[in-house]
Amino acid sequence: MKNTQFAVIGLGRFGMSLINELSRMGYDVLAIDNDEEKVQDAAETATHAVQADAMDEQALKSVGIRNFDVVVVAIGENIQTNILSTIILKEMGVKTVVAKARNALHGKVLEKIGADLVIYPERDMAVKLARSLVSRNILEHIELSPDYSIIELITPKDFIGKSLVDLGVRQKMGVTILAIRHSDEIIVAPRASQIIHPGDVLVALGKNADLQRLGEMES
Amino acid sequence: MKNTQFAVIGLGRFGMSLINELSRMGYDVLAIDNDEEKVQDAAETATHAVQADAMDEQALKSVGIRNFDVVVVAIGENIQTNILSTIILKEMGVKTVVAKARNALHGKVLEKIGADLVIYPERDMAVKLARSLVSRNILEHIELSPDYSIIELITPKDFIGKSLVDLGVRQKMGVTILAIRHSDEIIVAPRASQIIHPGDVLVALGKNADLQRLGEMES
Ligand SMILES: Nc1ncnc2c1ncn2[C@@H]1O[C@H](COP(=O)(O)OP(=O)(O)OP(=O)(O)O)[C@@H](O)[C@H]1O
Ligand SMILES: Nc1ncnc2c1ncn2[C@@H]1O[C@H](COP(=O)(O)OP(=O)(O)OP(=O)(O)O)[C@@H](O)[C@H]1O
Ligand SMILES: [Ca+2]
Ligand SMILES: [Ca+2]
Ligand SMILES: [Ca+2]
Ligand SMILES: [Ca+2]
Repeated sequence: MKNTQFAVIGLGRFGMSLINELSRMGYDVLAIDNDEEKVQDAAETATHAVQADAMDEQALKSVGIRNFDVVVVAIGENIQTNILSTIILKEMGVKTVVAKARNALHGKVLEKIGADLVIYPERDMAVKLARSLVSRNILEHIELSPDYSIIELITPKDFIGKSLVDLGVRQKMGVTILAIRHSDEIIVAPRASQIIHPGDVLVALGKNADLQRLGEMES
Repeated sequence: MKNTQFAVIGLGRFGMSLINELSRMGYDVLAIDNDEEKVQDAAETATHAVQADAMDEQALKSVGIRNFDVVVVAIGENIQTNILSTIILKEMGVKTVVAKARNALHGKVLEKIGADLVIYPERDMAVKLARSLVSRNILEHIELSPDYSIIELITPKDFIGKSLVDLGVRQKMGVTILAIRHSDEIIVAPRASQIIHPGDVLVALGKNADLQRLGEMES
């Protein structure tokens, strides 16, 4: 797997962060931008960094872009450049092209022209922030289905010193506590007699409405 | 809680998506930008939309910014504007100011000057994408501690038709299956005898290295 070869075109905040993370994980990444300064910055972390225009098929050919397993088009502001680059990459035979979309309409176009994965970083993080601003005690959220989720929750004040069975977490609240983070320790599948301590973080599974209620309790 | 009043300054992709999501959840949001066109776009979803400069204290005063519970500074390109606006808002007495940072250094400055929450949307989503590109079968990831995580995982091919105890998920792999999504149903805390079916999605808790190995199995 470490042999997967990545290329990132467009070294904005998203593109650069992606390169940093892939490099940190031990993968080879080629960084491409038409801005010489960005290319120089990227050269510190990327395996290779090349100045090229994302719409210049010849330039992409000469860096051997076809041989990369995954190419990410991380150009955001200019929709036209982003779309043209994606088309060129798919026509050149790049196996997996990931493209960053500005909005839903742009995303639809990218899918139509063959992008293998369309991402909306700004929108996705905005949805995550909105959720955490509204329910401050919910630290993380995984949607399992339209009705059920798992959340990571700061312990409500009223839970402290009580056991799960006393609280009726499952019976009365309809929620299953899957795990408890208690200082440095992770208690997996806690028993009904487990006491909640100050500073504990709960991992809970349940219906969205029931979890929402938990998230709204004072911590 | 629905009485929390939000204001978002800077109607880029992130700011606009945030307004859309907060409005969708039933909250009042004031949208502010110095670009008239952005203000007009936002007026369709925000409760109010006002054209103002984020660094103009008088303008912010006249929209009563002090009375908002949470103000999000979603200006990204111009670090100076972002920092000045954050300082002004804190000095005016806004209780919670959330500020979007370009990079770690910028984030540190924002914390020093009193931002209550500093966010890095591009970096956070890039880390998330890097992870999912490297481990395609891991759909979601929650870090519980530096060592332990919970993941949502596409079932490895070799798991299909076998029970959890036969596979030795806990004994041999050191991983606890917290839940299984089986078509529309969520099986919470499955028994050891539970059989894995094609299309099932597993929710697993374990050490990062053990989960990583699961994620690398063929699906
Ligand atoms: N034709 C092109 N060829 C190569 N690189 C390009 C081209 N056009 C733009 N870029 C580069 O793409 C990078 C990111 O661009 P842009 O600012 O459009 O994206 P963004 O979505 O705003 O980025 P961020 O990730 O910071 O939110 C910039 O470094 C820019 O130089
Ligand atoms: N001084 C200012 N006062 C009010 N709004 C401003 C000011 N400066 C910039 N803005 C607005 O902030 C918005 C977002 O700006 P910018 O493009 O800098 O952020 P970004 O981080 O690239 O956005 P995105 O969320 O799209 O990634 C723009 O609509 C811009 O008009
Ligand atoms: Ca930009
Ligand atoms: Ca209201
Ligand atoms: Ca921008
Ligand atoms: Ca951005």
